[in-house]
Amino acid sequence: MKVALDAMGGDKAPRVNLEGAAGALANYPTLKKLILVGDRGAIEALAPECHLDLGDPRIEIVHAPEVIGMCEPGAKAVRRKKQSSVAVAMDLVKSGDADAFVSAGNTGACVAAGQLKLRLIPGVERPGIASGLPNEHGPCHLLDAGANPEAKPSHLLGYAIMGAAYATGVYGVQRPKIGIMSNGEEDEKGTAFTKEVFTLVSALVDTGKAPFEFVGNVEGHDLFDSPLDVCLCDGFTGNIVLKSCEATAKAMGKWLKESLMASPVRKLGAALSKGAFAELKARSSAEAYGGSPLLGVNGVVIIAHGGSSALAIQNAIRAGVESVDHKVNEHIRTTLEAIKADA
Amino acid sequence: MKVALDAMGGDKAPRVNLEGAAGALANYPTLKKLILVGDRGAIEALAPECHLDLGDPRIEIVHAPEVIGMCEPGAKAVRRKKQSSVAVAMDLVKSGDADAFVSAGNTGACVAAGQLKLRLIPGVERPGIASGLPNEHGPCHLLDAGANPEAKPSHLLGYAIMGAAYATGVYGVQRPKIGIMSNGEEDEKGTAFTKEVFTLVSALVDTGKAPFEFVGNVEGHDLFDSPLDVCLCDGFTGNIVLKSCEATAKAMGKWLKESLMASPVRKLGAALSKGAFAELKARSSAEAYGGSPLLGVNGVVIIAHGGSSALAIQNAIRAGVESVDHKVNEHIRTTLEAIKADA
Repeated sequence: MKVALDAMGGDKAPRVNLEGAAGALANYPTLKKLILVGDRGAIEALAPECHLDLGDPRIEIVHAPEVIGMCEPGAKAVRRKKQSSVAVAMDLVKSGDADAFVSAGNTGACVAAGQLKLRLIPGVERPGIASGLPNEHGPCHLLDAGANPEAKPSHLLGYAIMGAAYATGVYGVQRPKIGIMSNGEEDEKGTAFTKEVFTLVSALVDTGKAPFEFVGNVEGHDLFDSPLDVCLCDGFTGNIVLKSCEATAKAMGKWLKESLMASPVRKLGAALSKGAFAELKARSSAEAYGGSPLLGVNGVVIIAHGGSSALAIQNAIRAGVESVDHKVNEHIRTTLEAIKADA
Repeated sequence: MKVALDAMGGDKAPRVNLEGAAGALANYPTLKKLILVGDRGAIEALAPECHLDLGDPRIEIVHAPEVIGMCEPGAKAVRRKKQSSVAVAMDLVKSGDADAFVSAGNTGACVAAGQLKLRLIPGVERPGIASGLPNEHGPCHLLDAGANPEAKPSHLLGYAIMGAAYATGVYGVQRPKIGIMSNGEEDEKGTAFTKEVFTLVSALVDTGKAPFEFVGNVEGHDLFDSPLDVCLCDGFTGNIVLKSCEATAKAMGKWLKESLMASPVRKLGAALSKGAFAELKARSSAEAYGGSPLLGVNGVVIIAHGGSSALAIQNAIRAGVESVDHKVNEHIRTTLEAIKADA
């Protein structure tokens, strides 16, 4: 199991990337090689501070002198900066020198590089990012969370199939439940776009060959408290929903802290129940997921938040390890083939 | 000040509506008359249980035998059910017998009835719902939060102007800050739709006559922690964002409670700091806002959640009172006229 980590991607790179790398090596025994892709000088200089032992035989550095900025237009940057950490790390997956790519860098660049260099799995129209939310019944994945902002309805049908294969292959869910994010749960709610998605998904269900259970339109609360494995949406909507949920959780945590610190008695109470706050944080924080797979490309690509912490990077590497271990793409491939064969 | 309350609208009607009515009468002295519109028999039967004294001279019941269900297609239902509580209550505003309409019923029906019966303020293309979120710098209003799911870019330009008039007129904000909800803060982020909105809003700003400061594209976290008075979006996106934020806050509250109850020591801690939890709830709960104005129609229309509690209904009535007190529509009218005169 070899993972290529974009050491330069993210708002706090390369520091948190190296700290996360150290955490991953300490915690995931199936991780046999971690390839740090980026500015060799910067990596070597910072490693000691980040408690990363470069003498560890599992670590390899592959130099990449260029960096794609967080705000550059992704596709253009990938074509222009062939020596960027994103491009070089993706090349390692393409050549088979790495089993997975992990980056907290420019999402557009990661998606473009994945599509350009790894190509799509046959039958996939567009790749999509599957971002997990902490649903009480197990993770609910927003798909797409931002790879494809101007999606077509047929892309979302593809996401339904890939999302089902992912939920079954990685999370062991038999007949995953899939819904469409809409402005109401009734079948007639939604836009012309979501209604067309509804029709396409229903048509697949009618053939009896859908690898999922279609629950129809869903709303915000379903993300957290209804049995729901995949929530279909275009990448614009998914990205906004994901960020809004994360922002709400963060604001709640901050406000709670402010209120708890407002008096000595409350402070004492908070100290007594601090285990509960730690649990809440672990349960609701985006860090726990760390990274989201880009489904549909011929290789494992894990995209983490630009604002990732060291723990988030560590968990993104874990997501890469799990995706490889669980053979995500084989599941997607065979699921697509089964539907095609039945068509 | 006379408010017409749809006594039959909402998932828990008419009970919470009557309880909310009692709360409003007890708390808002400028509320001189509260007209309960709905099934007279049901209202009279339930009033005692809801601590609503029908002998109060400020209360009037106007009988409306029909109810529009929460799942009926709104516009059609309004045309068909002329004796519905929504239609009858809106007629009271139209005739001047009420200054404001408040409902937790079918949103589509309320929007359709408002537009049909009250007509639009001259210069308004489409009405929009302004839903407040608890931003640290003062409320941030999502506009539109669901009146107009398939909006055109020009509708959002209108929302920018109306939202500015609302923030200034009701909240006293000079030069309100207005942004466009997008999948990234950079100017080039977004869809073809949001980019067109960006161009239209920028063009108005370039004339020097925009009654607001345009902050460009915004993301989820800006809703809570950046100075932002109005967040522009189509009604589909706004509705989904609003519900996702509310669902996250609710899930966080529930999970925190579960964790706090998990051990005797934590329970003790929670008891000591319970004031902090009450503060958090007051700060983050949708109940605190209660109702959202439908901006752009010739009259005050306040739309509350279908799932409103009695407190939410009470606060929705307060929102109606405030909108009348602050002459929201006069502000919108003069703001639109000023821009037109300058064009």
